[in-house]
Amino acid sequence: MTDQHRLTELAQQLRVDAVRAADAAGSGHPTSSMSAADLIAVLAADHLRYDFDAPDHSGNDHLIFSKGHASPLLYALYKACGAISDDELLRYRKLGSPLEGHPTPRLPWVDVATGSLGQGLPIGAGIALAGARFDRLPYRVWVLCGDSELAEGSVWEALEYAGQERLANLTAILDINRLGQRGPTRHGWDLDAYRRRVAAFGWHTIEVDGHDPEAIDAAYREARETTDRPTAVIARTVKGQGVSGVADKEGAHGKPVPDAEEAIAELGGRRDLRIEVARPTSGGVSQRPGGTQVELPVYQPGEEVATRDAFGKAVAALGDGRPDVVVLDGEVADSTRAKAFAEAHPDRFVELYIAEQQLVATAVGLQVRGYTPYAATFAAFFSRAYDFVRMAAVSGADINLVGSHAGVSIGEDGPSQMGLEDIASLRAVHNSVVLHPCDANSTARLTAGMAEHRGVSYLRTLRGETPVLYGPDEGFHIGGSKVLRSSAQDRATVVAAGATVHEALRAADALAADGIAVRVIDAYSIKPVDAATLRAAARETGRVVTVEDHWPEGGLGDAVLDVFADTRTMPRTMKLAVSGMPASATPEEQRREAGIDAGAIEAAVRGILRQEESAAVAAGG
Amino acid sequence: MTDQHRLTELAQQLRVDAVRAADAAGSGHPTSSMSAADLIAVLAADHLRYDFDAPDHSGNDHLIFSKGHASPLLYALYKACGAISDDELLRYRKLGSPLEGHPTPRLPWVDVATGSLGQGLPIGAGIALAGARFDRLPYRVWVLCGDSELAEGSVWEALEYAGQERLANLTAILDINRLGQRGPTRHGWDLDAYRRRVAAFGWHTIEVDGHDPEAIDAAYREARETTDRPTAVIARTVKGQGVSGVADKEGAHGKPVPDAEEAIAELGGRRDLRIEVARPTSGGVSQRPGGTQVELPVYQPGEEVATRDAFGKAVAALGDGRPDVVVLDGEVADSTRAKAFAEAHPDRFVELYIAEQQLVATAVGLQVRGYTPYAATFAAFFSRAYDFVRMAAVSGADINLVGSHAGVSIGEDGPSQMGLEDIASLRAVHNSVVLHPCDANSTARLTAGMAEHRGVSYLRTLRGETPVLYGPDEGFHIGGSKVLRSSAQDRATVVAAGATVHEALRAADALAADGIAVRVIDAYSIKPVDAATLRAAARETGRVVTVEDHWPEGGLGDAVLDVFADTRTMPRTMKLAVSGMPASATPEEQRREAGIDAGAIEAAVRGILRQEESAAVAAGG
Repeated sequence: MTDQHRLTELAQQLRVDAVRAADAAGSGHPTSSMSAADLIAVLAADHLRYDFDAPDHSGNDHLIFSKGHASPLLYALYKACGAISDDELLRYRKLGSPLEGHPTPRLPWVDVATGSLGQGLPIGAGIALAGARFDRLPYRVWVLCGDSELAEGSVWEALEYAGQERLANLTAILDINRLGQRGPTRHGWDLDAYRRRVAAFGWHTIEVDGHDPEAIDAAYREARETTDRPTAVIARTVKGQGVSGVADKEGAHGKPVPDAEEAIAELGGRRDLRIEVARPTSGGVSQRPGGTQVELPVYQPGEEVATRDAFGKAVAALGDGRPDVVVLDGEVADSTRAKAFAEAHPDRFVELYIAEQQLVATAVGLQVRGYTPYAATFAAFFSRAYDFVRMAAVSGADINLVGSHAGVSIGEDGPSQMGLEDIASLRAVHNSVVLHPCDANSTARLTAGMAEHRGVSYLRTLRGETPVLYGPDEGFHIGGSKVLRSSAQDRATVVAAGATVHEALRAADALAADGIAVRVIDAYSIKPVDAATLRAAARETGRVVTVEDHWPEGGLGDAVLDVFADTRTMPRTMKLAVSGMPASATPEEQRREAGIDAGAIEAAVRGILRQEESAAVAAGG
Repeated sequence: MTDQHRLTELAQQLRVDAVRAADAAGSGHPTSSMSAADLIAVLAADHLRYDFDAPDHSGNDHLIFSKGHASPLLYALYKACGAISDDELLRYRKLGSPLEGHPTPRLPWVDVATGSLGQGLPIGAGIALAGARFDRLPYRVWVLCGDSELAEGSVWEALEYAGQERLANLTAILDINRLGQRGPTRHGWDLDAYRRRVAAFGWHTIEVDGHDPEAIDAAYREARETTDRPTAVIARTVKGQGVSGVADKEGAHGKPVPDAEEAIAELGGRRDLRIEVARPTSGGVSQRPGGTQVELPVYQPGEEVATRDAFGKAVAALGDGRPDVVVLDGEVADSTRAKAFAEAHPDRFVELYIAEQQLVATAVGLQVRGYTPYAATFAAFFSRAYDFVRMAAVSGADINLVGSHAGVSIGEDGPSQMGLEDIASLRAVHNSVVLHPCDANSTARLTAGMAEHRGVSYLRTLRGETPVLYGPDEGFHIGGSKVLRSSAQDRATVVAAGATVHEALRAADALAADGIAVRVIDAYSIKPVDAATLRAAARETGRVVTVEDHWPEGGLGDAVLDVFADTRTMPRTMKLAVSGMPASATPEEQRREAGIDAGAIEAAVRGILRQEESAAVAAGG
């Protein structure tokens, strides 16, 4: 058969298998798959370079379905490539099958989870950056995007970023099928509306008929030959193409076609064509060379150092020994102190400007290629990228996030700049780690340690200086804590982290002067929290006060309460947290107004003891 | 003096006062203020319509400093307009002053809090929509944007949205001063780079010298005369303009100018010019007419109804009686069931497409003008707009968010579509309400009730059908709960919400059949949670099991634990929550795999009782 005919047949097979998979599952998005079948058939048959037997091959192209709901098409492709069997295909969306409703890296050929729209292109830009700037390998990144998702701002962050970086190894395939989930998209088939916008961001653009294999082939060729900027192939397609009952029809999104047998017949019946995807010609599966021993900066107890500074210097030192460490900035490197890395390793410093979604997406993209990214911005502004962090967890991505300017302790800048919900939101990310050290030495150790965690790690740093509490040789680890004050006479335990550790120590000193001994725990690892130490302290002291520079919900206090949940005897626990909306004030005023300073802690301990004494007296009387 | 001279003098006064305010505060962003001083002087003197004595006047223009860090300029303007005194200006950033580091509505002339960049334009587009489509008043919305923030995807969501809606009453003033926080911006002074991009999104664009009052005046005039689309005035400016020590210099961001006296002298010294801002010529301060009595849909116990359906029908009914209710959609109205409102009230249904930041921003903008917005998308996808929700709380905005497809109970679509961190993240929003009803009647009541809450309200709905549990006359309120099973013999309490209520009832029935009575509480109000009922149940039954379709962190379980925190006797509490990363499966399989189904609840209760019996036997022996 002619090449054109072969490609058409292949696309029909992909459609048939997409229809079959969704039909077997009783759910899924066959029509969204059918619009892109020709685009993917031509790509796989004639342009993609990929070794399905070696998904970790460094020379492999990367194919990302940003429109993750077109998973039936992706899996139909895998079948055509011999990666999965027809039986496996028909287990689509079933319990235990890695062929999920939206692709995840449970399948070895999937780099990142998609399904939350508008994420594939930003992450693809991150992988393309890895290829162009760090791997220096000729692999290409192909991202299939839907038209509806082009409404997401994150897509425009990616277009801007890739355009500026001139990531010519990146191709966006825009499947303009005119219909979104609930009806027509904003621009319908006005391909020129997309072309104008994308071109304005510095991309090469090609408009094609998305059902003409020859035109598609020429477009991909042109994309590969365009070496000075990324290319967008803007394809006019028909949703449900090939099946008259659903083609270009509203109301056919996200469900099996009404009559699968009829649809398969209309598509020409089942086929069993095989695609021989070209193998990569460069790269290999060799391991990345290991780093050398890292000498972290150390500080002497009593010095006053902001933990953000300690982070910056530590990550710069880490970069000396580990060539896999890359630092990403959201145009606040002077504030987060990521600039220390920028100065030491300008070649591995990536500026994303104020685009936090692209910031996190780039981190996710870089870890696909084995790099160890640290993405830093204000703690508050990771809220801008929360969906990307959430999806990074679905991807099982290993990324390190560093949020500075935690809590009311930043002072005058006011609530817009204060990270006050970061612990809650980042604790609620699957398999995440949340660290909040209070001094420079612990920050340095944890900065290095977080890279060892598989998953999303978050380090929360402080704007203001705090005294160094720990010696240079002290160890700190994920899941650990430090008991800073302890005696057999302790009548309560104060659990703190970050700025409030220093408030707790002040409170403990004031109480000690009054004959009241309290234990003080630095819970620098908020997730996982050091359950054994907390339980022992609760058992031994009977009363627990938690104090945090964060809203009361979901933070340190809740993490501590959770430790006591499934124990027979829960201690009396009082949570101190930021109680009202802050305004501008000095850091000390802020903590006082918020009710999380030494005075508030002291009052809380005294209040509990007094209340218990009154109760005891009443009971005794 | 000539008009040109008058405007120049006025701008210099604004610069001087910005310098003075930051100098008195010892912090702040005078240089970011100085670049925009001419732009703001000309606007206020000759184009703005605003009655400072009546900030609620419906005819007032809206001026939003999206670059909120230029607050010294805004406050200098307020002083020039006679709204604040010089003494008040010099209390900038001090404890108790409403002149915060970044503007908030603590000042009556500030519509919304800014300071998290890239939010002012999306919210401004929402206000402009209110003016053009709902108020039908000729007020204008002027948004001052920095150049760095144009990297935020949210800005492009706004440009796309306002361009499509042809919001000619919206003017974006782009202060292109070339320097961001840490150095040069992406496009520097390449005004054409901005022009190409903005124009591609359907805006009228005008490039001007941002320090030439005459050119600025002409640009604003042109913007006002452009009636078919929004206008962007792209102004080339100099950061720190007017003070040679800081003008166009790196390292001068976000700090007072080094020598304020010298700077003031170079700026020509202090002035005391007064701006007479033109008053609005239409509108008034009259109250919005109240709604009529609303007849909510009712359901009969035993019917199977998805709570998302109940939301859609309830909000549609609410719209019958309340003309202030507007429903906003992120292109998933068929899934969230917001389409019921779209069908009943197409005139008050707003389609934002898949742009969740603009979705929430539009809600914030509409409530500025007194509307009651309900913004609906998947629970998971509010994570895309988390920073906007966070800032809405800083604004004290009254918005209603409705997230469908909660938890693993959605079934086959997999984790990308599951809201599993929404309770945690939305509980950690200041003054928020989090509701998660389990049946249709409670959903209908709470849909109506949430509109009464001042602040951010969140309703979490279910994809699948659940049986109607409550009669049509049952009452539900924020902070309430329902005790579904109760007896004097209860040996444990199961606290559930949403889908898990039905699992809890099944577990209670199975346990009852075995002679074990357990109390079941429907904690439909997760924040605020019904502390009194929970404490009574804990006291009376001694043991508590919480069960939620959500990650273990920050959800219902933590809300319940928090209730027991500061009590003398904490009950033994066990939390059941989603334990591992889900894949595809049926809803029933998902809940079983997650460990939150009836079987898991039953096992938890039995396990606790067995353990206690063993302990009692051991103690007795």
